[in-house]
Amino acid sequence: MLKGNCVVAQSGGPSAVINASLAGVISEALKSDYIETVYGSHNGIEGILNNNLINLNELFEGKQDDLDLLKITPAMFLGSCRHKMSEDENDEEYNIIFNVFREKNIKYFFYIGGNDSMDTVLKLSQIAAARQEDVIFMGVPKTIDNDLPITDHTPGFGSAAKFIATSIYEMSFDFDVYDKEGVLIVEVMGRNAGWLTASSVLARVGGRTAPQLIYLPEVAFDEDKFIEDIKTKMKEHKQVVVAVSEGIKNQDGKYISAQSENKDKFGHVMLNGAGKYLERLVADRLACKVRSVELNILQRGSAHLLSRTDNNEAFILGSEAVVAATAGHTGEMTIVKRMCNNPYSVKVDTCPIGDVANQEKKVPLEWITSEGNDVTDEMISYLEPLILGEAELEYEKGLPKYYYL
Amino acid sequence: MLKGNCVVAQSGGPSAVINASLAGVISEALKSDYIETVYGSHNGIEGILNNNLINLNELFEGKQDDLDLLKITPAMFLGSCRHKMSEDENDEEYNIIFNVFREKNIKYFFYIGGNDSMDTVLKLSQIAAARQEDVIFMGVPKTIDNDLPITDHTPGFGSAAKFIATSIYEMSFDFDVYDKEGVLIVEVMGRNAGWLTASSVLARVGGRTAPQLIYLPEVAFDEDKFIEDIKTKMKEHKQVVVAVSEGIKNQDGKYISAQSENKDKFGHVMLNGAGKYLERLVADRLACKVRSVELNILQRGSAHLLSRTDNNEAFILGSEAVVAATAGHTGEMTIVKRMCNNPYSVKVDTCPIGDVANQEKKVPLEWITSEGNDVTDEMISYLEPLILGEAELEYEKGLPKYYYL
Repeated sequence: MLKGNCVVAQSGGPSAVINASLAGVISEALKSDYIETVYGSHNGIEGILNNNLINLNELFEGKQDDLDLLKITPAMFLGSCRHKMSEDENDEEYNIIFNVFREKNIKYFFYIGGNDSMDTVLKLSQIAAARQEDVIFMGVPKTIDNDLPITDHTPGFGSAAKFIATSIYEMSFDFDVYDKEGVLIVEVMGRNAGWLTASSVLARVGGRTAPQLIYLPEVAFDEDKFIEDIKTKMKEHKQVVVAVSEGIKNQDGKYISAQSENKDKFGHVMLNGAGKYLERLVADRLACKVRSVELNILQRGSAHLLSRTDNNEAFILGSEAVVAATAGHTGEMTIVKRMCNNPYSVKVDTCPIGDVANQEKKVPLEWITSEGNDVTDEMISYLEPLILGEAELEYEKGLPKYYYL
Repeated sequence: MLKGNCVVAQSGGPSAVINASLAGVISEALKSDYIETVYGSHNGIEGILNNNLINLNELFEGKQDDLDLLKITPAMFLGSCRHKMSEDENDEEYNIIFNVFREKNIKYFFYIGGNDSMDTVLKLSQIAAARQEDVIFMGVPKTIDNDLPITDHTPGFGSAAKFIATSIYEMSFDFDVYDKEGVLIVEVMGRNAGWLTASSVLARVGGRTAPQLIYLPEVAFDEDKFIEDIKTKMKEHKQVVVAVSEGIKNQDGKYISAQSENKDKFGHVMLNGAGKYLERLVADRLACKVRSVELNILQRGSAHLLSRTDNNEAFILGSEAVVAATAGHTGEMTIVKRMCNNPYSVKVDTCPIGDVANQEKKVPLEWITSEGNDVTDEMISYLEPLILGEAELEYEKGLPKYYYL
């Protein structure tokens, strides 16, 4: 087995539990006989390119309380980046990276991130193989979007789902206080995959009825049908709550959005305003009160409401990446396999990184109702276990206590 | 003392603890020797006008667990209204109300609400006196806006403040993950009074720096100064978090808002979009990443994050209204007097309803910094105790358990 130092980094958008995966990597790496110094790279791969590494042994060795606090701290302790690696494998940035690895005797690289980050792991592991560099590359999945294939679900998703379900559940109490017809539109994150929006259905599991309508980006959105759906639901419920994905598109594939469409450097359309657009549409077509709420970045970093199931799995997928790497695996990502729904149990495994990089797992169409405005019981069974359990937070001066320097 | 039945009702906008006040009224009324049946009026005073009363003895007598659950349930169990009472004291609606009171032998009326609701209590108590009707009227304060005079603060404010502070604290972790300049604008509720926006300062009490800028409606907002403020703060912090009230106005008293100004029937301007407007302004003037987040109705009903201090006080202000009423007080509202900041202690008292109805307590200008972009230490001392303590929630299937029929 390789023996030397390791680097861990985080990339992509924040979540409530990506630091739990970091804590998992650090915890296991500090114990490992194959790893001496554990470096953290600031701002993902850019920390290696800019020689901005931090010694994590100094911060966390013998400090279990700090590691425990890191585990429940939202967002990304090491910072993030959205750096896209060059398609040219002779690009100078690859030389810089492997030079840093040699200089610092780095034998293991752990990258916690989503689709784009796994693309980085894939490219680096391929180039390492081609150049016969003795460095092992392991990915640890992270994305609130739950859109990575192979793994049953991704860390970060369960906590975001718990926030979305709880918020809509609580807003349903708020929204039905007036004795008059109204529509509440809640815009949920998710560009192409509707998992987050689907999780709004969990607001109903206790017996309440909101959200009455759920629209995912997997099904073409029809404005006239939407207005008819609201009218139908309003016959039963004066106040109709609608959960809608930011990424809903019409049948021509055009985003339902009040704003212009700009693209980020990964070629993703930056969205804003599906909820606001639909609010105006309802105001225009129906004579009733209407409000839209955008859950925005609250849904991805509200660690005070994290799912303990999600938090624990994120930690284990981090620690198991170290176990697999020091057993010789490279170019892989840790994954969750669901063994049983009730009682919920999972097994941790790994898969080749090529199977997940740049892939997107959408909601299966058979988990969406034929009307295209709700999800099925199979979806509920899939989602239910993922939001179970709460954080054990300590509060200081009324705020949750988190880890930061 | 009067002996008979009582009615309790809720009015105005929801909060995380208005049901705690309801639980306080019910709890004390069920114990009282002067009160037989406790009626709840659906949708505020409209429940009396429409003969839509519910027998609360049947629901809660001997059911302490249900009352405990009601105490932590967000929004308004009895529903709300925004009914403005006629200025004409001979209006038929007053005859209807006093007829219902006589028919149902109602001797006590408890109204939980904000400025507008206290106007209803004032009018009804004046007409009762003029008509020599034997009915006692008591107000119980409620408003997240904290804009009622006389009382040190209002139930609902502390929990909203805790949500606002926690959200901005958590978003500050999210927003600083990228190594580049950015501005996060958080729009907070509060039309004319800046208490809620001021409470964002509590995100800093643990030692973090966000929000770096805080703008309240009490100070005229200058767009050029705002851009300069951001530039100045950006020299110290790459990522600047700004808390801004929905009700900020320019020096001509015009709302800083991206949208048209509509008025509700109380003559209040309905606002939308100060945050979005400033987002566009920053994008236009500064070459950096900018995002705006509207906390929207999440900030008033997120009972999972309620302040236990607030929750307990809301309950006591409800129960003490019954104690005062059955001791003969009428045309009054229960209030909180702060005795000490550290250790925090309060005394409950009552004040004449005429002193609070239709009044608005704004933030004192001496609690705002001379630059107009932050609050002072006096404000922090005032706010700090109000968000202390957490709810003891039970979770079912991953969601907080609340009371509903």
